Amino acid sequence: MRSEIQEQPKVVAALTGGSGEHYRALVRALKSVPLHFVLYVARGTSDNAAVYGQYLASTLAGLPSGLALPSATTLYRSRLSLRHSLVVGISQSGETPDVAEAVAAAHSQGARTVAITNNPTSPLAEASDWVLETRAGAEHAVAATKTYTAELAVLALLWSTWAGDGALLGSLADEVPAALEDSLATESAMATLAGQLAPAPRLLLVARGYNLATALETSLKIQETAAVPSLAYSGADLLHGPIAMLDQGVWVLCFSASGPTEGSMAELRRTLLSRGARVVNLTNVPVELSVPQGPVSAAVTAGGPVYTIGLPPLPEPLSPIVNIVPGQLLAYHLAVAAGRDPDHPVGLTKVTFTR
Amino acid sequence: MRSEIQEQPKVVAALTGGSGEHYRALVRALKSVPLHFVLYVARGTSDNAAVYGQYLASTLAGLPSGLALPSATTLYRSRLSLRHSLVVGISQSGETPDVAEAVAAAHSQGARTVAITNNPTSPLAEASDWVLETRAGAEHAVAATKTYTAELAVLALLWSTWAGDGALLGSLADEVPAALEDSLATESAMATLAGQLAPAPRLLLVARGYNLATALETSLKIQETAAVPSLAYSGADLLHGPIAMLDQGVWVLCFSASGPTEGSMAELRRTLLSRGARVVNLTNVPVELSVPQGPVSAAVTAGGPVYTIGLPPLPEPLSPIVNIVPGQLLAYHLAVAAGRDPDHPVGLTKVTFTR
Repeated sequence: MRSEIQEQPKVVAALTGGSGEHYRALVRALKSVPLHFVLYVARGTSDNAAVYGQYLASTLAGLPSGLALPSATTLYRSRLSLRHSLVVGISQSGETPDVAEAVAAAHSQGARTVAITNNPTSPLAEASDWVLETRAGAEHAVAATKTYTAELAVLALLWSTWAGDGALLGSLADEVPAALEDSLATESAMATLAGQLAPAPRLLLVARGYNLATALETSLKIQETAAVPSLAYSGADLLHGPIAMLDQGVWVLCFSASGPTEGSMAELRRTLLSRGARVVNLTNVPVELSVPQGPVSAAVTAGGPVYTIGLPPLPEPLSPIVNIVPGQLLAYHLAVAAGRDPDHPVGLTKVTFTR
Repeated sequence: MRSEIQEQPKVVAALTGGSGEHYRALVRALKSVPLHFVLYVARGTSDNAAVYGQYLASTLAGLPSGLALPSATTLYRSRLSLRHSLVVGISQSGETPDVAEAVAAAHSQGARTVAITNNPTSPLAEASDWVLETRAGAEHAVAATKTYTAELAVLALLWSTWAGDGALLGSLADEVPAALEDSLATESAMATLAGQLAPAPRLLLVARGYNLATALETSLKIQETAAVPSLAYSGADLLHGPIAMLDQGVWVLCFSASGPTEGSMAELRRTLLSRGARVVNLTNVPVELSVPQGPVSAAVTAGGPVYTIGLPPLPEPLSPIVNIVPGQLLAYHLAVAAGRDPDHPVGLTKVTFTR
């Protein structure tokens, strides 16, 4: 797992450094028919990539989107009317039966279908009109890391190309690989933090907007590798009920990024602190980074100061590709601190066969 | 909270016993324009109602659907293309700013808009083309109960009317109120179970298909009132990672219903038992109910037999309206067992103002 985390700058650089011609051809083909809606089909880690894809489709293409209910196809045998839909199946292995089956059904129901997968000869790829490969190489650890960031990079390439957003495409090629490299330098801070968090009976992870995907995926990594019950929420959804669980001293990890969500996240951190939470802020907001910080152990007390971990600056729509790295490292070190083998979580296999 | 739980048969009977003319008129109007997609806008409890609404739209109307990202509108100011979308805003109070604002924006972006709310003069109702009232009367407890079941009943009426499904409409009027009455009889079993669960550091709740909404909403109620970190998953998503958290003796509550999902849930329970979980099965599947059961305390041991709690028989698409009742009762009694006031959860207010 750790070596695959470290491969991420190289994997993403190979994806974002291409000519982009395959993406432009795909976007031309997709725009030649009226598409009103995007439906993502995915499970597990890829479902979190799909959450990122929802924000991209909304903000870059003005397209509403949803996460498919695979069981509507595989169990209830619904006949969906999908003539005006783009259906995007996302799966590292491409072998999860319900994802492949739902995409194949969508194709027969009139949808345009795209597969995002690390396996171009998989059932998912075969069921799809187009394939966008993640080209991450074999992933051996059960907990997906480099295939997740590769899925995000593919989604960013797809929707930036759709929007004709040259600035984002430039940043994907020029800034993101170096930012991924920089993000690996958070490892010692995350190892220290893991030592602090290890006795915690639970964790809360919070973000808004694009980085909701980061909070969800960090939570899943922690559940998988360290078996800690972590709960991830949008900052808004947290206020609609789950915040009642906030006992004194609960650890809350906030992901925030420069952009329209930063004010909302700053307000949320104040609320969390006033209720006695211990708050860690993983952020790339310059003004938040300018606050001097001590070591984790000294700084983070219940209701006390926020401990800030700096993340590399990037345009917000691309920040989830990089911000997940400290989350992956935290999960890895939490597992190690708990005496678990992060490469072989109990009871999981690399490909999950669900219907 | 307890008295509002007990009002549910009456509230739902008043909704489902109407002439249905308002629903037929709405469906005629909606079908007069080409609609390809349903977008639900909601937060908290109403978001769980929207999950139910997604299954209804898929299976009864063949329409793909999604849960809106309110921040795409309120923070990122996306201009969505919604000319072919039906946007359904769901909110008990109708006053949550981001829900009302997202529906108003959807209206200006070409969507047909429907509000499902307990407050017909709210900002959400005013922003919508049509209003479907939940008519649940004033709800005083912070944790929503009767407005949730009323939202489900309204959604079931809407989509059954859309599908022209006379059998479901008949069952809504004739069977559901009595089944709700019967479900209240689970209270003593849920109070006993709450006593067993009270020391548990966490709970898992699992379902598939329609009753995923039941698992999610039970989890939210438990978080709100008893401050227990409960995690809810679709049975398929659980296998894609979170099942690694399943330490010996973890309590798992499964909701299962007669229909296409029952085989999948039975298989999941066997998996959970083989990993040492303590499994409680809330079910209306006749063959599962025929198994004789002892008291909770004796029966449920780690890896031991499943404890079964019987729920009233109903067509699966309507079962979530009734199956949530034991979940609400469990949350109530867990709060009481923990010495908390279920009517006034710490740090929550009845209307949450998020943007």
